[in-house]
Amino acid sequence: MPMKKFINKPENVVQELLEGYTLAYPDKVRLAGNNLVVRAVPKAMGKVGIVTLGGSGHEPGLSGFVGEGMLDVSVPGEIFAAPGAPRCLEAIRLADRGAGVLFVVLNHAGDVLSANVTMELAKKEGLAVKMILTHEDISSGDRDHPEDRRGLVGFFPVYKVSGAAAEEGASLDEVLAIAGRMERNMRTLAVAVKTATHPSTGEAIFTLGDDEMEIGMGQHGEAGTGRMKLKTADETAEIMLGQLLDDLEVRQGEELLVILNGAGATTLMELFIVFRRVKQILAQKKIKVARSVVGEYITTQEQAGFQMHIARMERDLLRLWDAPCDTPYFVVR
Amino acid sequence: MPMKKFINKPENVVQELLEGYTLAYPDKVRLAGNNLVVRAVPKAMGKVGIVTLGGSGHEPGLSGFVGEGMLDVSVPGEIFAAPGAPRCLEAIRLADRGAGVLFVVLNHAGDVLSANVTMELAKKEGLAVKMILTHEDISSGDRDHPEDRRGLVGFFPVYKVSGAAAEEGASLDEVLAIAGRMERNMRTLAVAVKTATHPSTGEAIFTLGDDEMEIGMGQHGEAGTGRMKLKTADETAEIMLGQLLDDLEVRQGEELLVILNGAGATTLMELFIVFRRVKQILAQKKIKVARSVVGEYITTQEQAGFQMHIARMERDLLRLWDAPCDTPYFVVR
Repeated sequence: MPMKKFINKPENVVQELLEGYTLAYPDKVRLAGNNLVVRAVPKAMGKVGIVTLGGSGHEPGLSGFVGEGMLDVSVPGEIFAAPGAPRCLEAIRLADRGAGVLFVVLNHAGDVLSANVTMELAKKEGLAVKMILTHEDISSGDRDHPEDRRGLVGFFPVYKVSGAAAEEGASLDEVLAIAGRMERNMRTLAVAVKTATHPSTGEAIFTLGDDEMEIGMGQHGEAGTGRMKLKTADETAEIMLGQLLDDLEVRQGEELLVILNGAGATTLMELFIVFRRVKQILAQKKIKVARSVVGEYITTQEQAGFQMHIARMERDLLRLWDAPCDTPYFVVR
Repeated sequence: MPMKKFINKPENVVQELLEGYTLAYPDKVRLAGNNLVVRAVPKAMGKVGIVTLGGSGHEPGLSGFVGEGMLDVSVPGEIFAAPGAPRCLEAIRLADRGAGVLFVVLNHAGDVLSANVTMELAKKEGLAVKMILTHEDISSGDRDHPEDRRGLVGFFPVYKVSGAAAEEGASLDEVLAIAGRMERNMRTLAVAVKTATHPSTGEAIFTLGDDEMEIGMGQHGEAGTGRMKLKTADETAEIMLGQLLDDLEVRQGEELLVILNGAGATTLMELFIVFRRVKQILAQKKIKVARSVVGEYITTQEQAGFQMHIARMERDLLRLWDAPCDTPYFVVR
């Protein structure tokens, strides 16, 4: 059965998608150097640069968030594969405008390997760069092993608040501190109900029975901890939110950011229905939803499922979340 | 095989999605009256109101664009079904702040039926309301029968430019003239490769062979004019853009808005690859892409495919397209 995707040669997918993306938003982003996505209008000298890396095939993540108030440079890899250290180093050089660079890395083995080599090379060059690892997926490691937890949609609030702090003129240490606080305050849990096909190979990424869903599945079909029979929207929301609230130890009276991130083929219609139940449960527990967004920020092709993300929002994190930004796939006025 | 959607009781889908949507964006939208989606902060007296109607199941269309600079009130129907005239009349009353109301209707039989009854009732009440019908799908009627053409993603630029004109204080006649000019300047063509399931019945909306695609398919699986073997991204772009340029009679030197609207399960990755080819072809023909957006503005559940939309942008239409707006699913700074 042929793959039903609009592509040309599988080996050209990444090059062509990057060209198309930057041609579609020429006022906001462009390609520079060796396929780095950078701001169309470079940031001012003296601003801390924000750089990230990650595999392609997850659009709009991660390059969709390059722009004022978020990222300066994104280093896209091949499909589901980390880019190499030389391109990451080039990105850090480009982003360094005299105030240093924050390097945001989602915890996946390949990305971390590239990032660690990059950090060594950057330090040898005397570049001022600090790395923050996002690892908020509660299914892939228990609370005693946070180093096993993967980085999921939590990159999004980390880009947002660190990008806003950088835009305001915070120092590299201050930007790192903000990013670190956001990272420690957040948790994500994913659920999948239908698989996706790899756009280069045409292979299914994972398999699930016709009546099954899996809680805890990773961004590339990595096994989760909860394969079970299909549940309703409300039951799914209850299971997932309960685990997240427990893990983050959220207490009555606290204020949360809630993100529901669609995996690809799950509709906004469904995400709204799930969000409704999340809001009801939190209201019963007297936990406030300070801010919320529902949409597709990082996807896995046409996979069906979603990520539920909660973050404890202290006052300054909220202020930075609300600050203006202007990227192709997230704009705040 | 059970439907793999996150819902509860099928009969509650619309009520629950509307609750969830408005709870997720409480600073921007709320429910009023009989399930009307209105701005959280009502517009000032003296502004022309912009109202629309349409079936649910196409999120974020249409209610996702209620907010400053776009819609004042959206009247959502049941899944894929038009709302009745009484709720539309209620919406027009709500939106009337002393300067009249523009009623934007996408050309589908049920919507037009409701809209015509609504217009009669509104006129009996002495309400100042003008209706604009969008019908820009070139596959569903030839150029001699524009009344047969359906309304697809073209609602989006019509909401944008008429909403911006209203926000600037234009009169009802002026807002109608802007909407009308936008409407006459635009064309859309859709393609589908995979079907979707109706969230209430669990039935497939249409069928397509494993190696087939269909150009011209409507928003609810209405038959198109071009069922054919699967094509590459570039071939698909060439076929569709060629038909659109011919129909709109676009000439060298003109400036276009280009929208690629994903149907649901088609990835941004694919849409970027298609956009790249669109831009190449237009560059060869010396036609300028003045503005472009790529994303999901109106969907059909987990259908795979997309709509390609082009519009001739005169100077004032471009200015109104660029004007600030602040809605849950489209923000311009």
